[in-house]
Amino acid sequence: MLIREMSREECFRALAGSRLARLACSRENQPYVVPVYLALHEASECLYGFTTFGQKVEWMRANPLVCVETGEVAANNQWVSVIAFGRYEELPERPGNDKERLMAWQVLKTDPMWWEPGDMAWTARASCDPTETLTPVYYRIRIGQMTGREAAQATRIERHVTPPG
Amino acid sequence: MLIREMSREECFRALAGSRLARLACSRENQPYVVPVYLALHEASECLYGFTTFGQKVEWMRANPLVCVETGEVAANNQWVSVIAFGRYEELPERPGNDKERLMAWQVLKTDPMWWEPGDMAWTARASCDPTETLTPVYYRIRIGQMTGREAAQATRIERHVTPPG
Repeated sequence: MLIREMSREECFRALAGSRLARLACSRENQPYVVPVYLALHEASECLYGFTTFGQKVEWMRANPLVCVETGEVAANNQWVSVIAFGRYEELPERPGNDKERLMAWQVLKTDPMWWEPGDMAWTARASCDPTETLTPVYYRIRIGQMTGREAAQATRIERHVTPPG
Repeated sequence: MLIREMSREECFRALAGSRLARLACSRENQPYVVPVYLALHEASECLYGFTTFGQKVEWMRANPLVCVETGEVAANNQWVSVIAFGRYEELPERPGNDKERLMAWQVLKTDPMWWEPGDMAWTARASCDPTETLTPVYYRIRIGQMTGREAAQATRIERHVTPPG
């Protein structure tokens, strides 16, 4: 197997090609990771998302430091993984924010199913607890440090790992 | 789409069926998430892993609180996702630890490729910096609170989401 570090440009290409990501946030040093759909806006180096209020929004409001992982695992020895540290920025509905929210909507709507994960949570929560806040939440992750690795299948060398002891 | 909460038993079944997971750790409230291969030992409610020393081990040694996400996404409206909070426990090579390390090895080796992700990192690091520690690290995640959700395809109702404003 050959593993190589990806350039920042290649990392952006991988982020652009994969909407499904894992978003990790943290509260009082307890990490929390959830699957989300994010859409890249490369010019601003931001990932845009849409959800409804819940645990991850509550935690990211309290601590905006996040980490996003995305990639493809075709096989144990054939995969791409990109890990980006970033900062959560919510785009609430208030005067002066229209342009940003419209930008989020424009980036997200390139996927015809973009609203589904957020809407999904909405439906699920509505059926459980109708008093919970159902306001849609638009947000973006401003990407900071980012690393990516790609593994490509090569000639397999057999080896044995012996038990520890 | 129908979404339902999974029982703890169903969550364990999903964990047992999917070796690939996302492991999130945190240092000074900066979360970090990486793809890992983990093997479930259901009787002890632990996930076992194998890696080499690197950023995630360093962070988990400093703060053992972790979160693991695993599941399958067949389509936007057909997926399973399990999220488990847990505690990192390293199984270092020292007197009295042989039984635990052997247990880790026995659980992990049920997958013929179990050693590959750790070995992979090892190969990659060895090629970059031969001075880095190359000691194999066996660890387990003791599972605490766990939630799971399953979405199943249902009759699709068309709807439109209008731009924010």
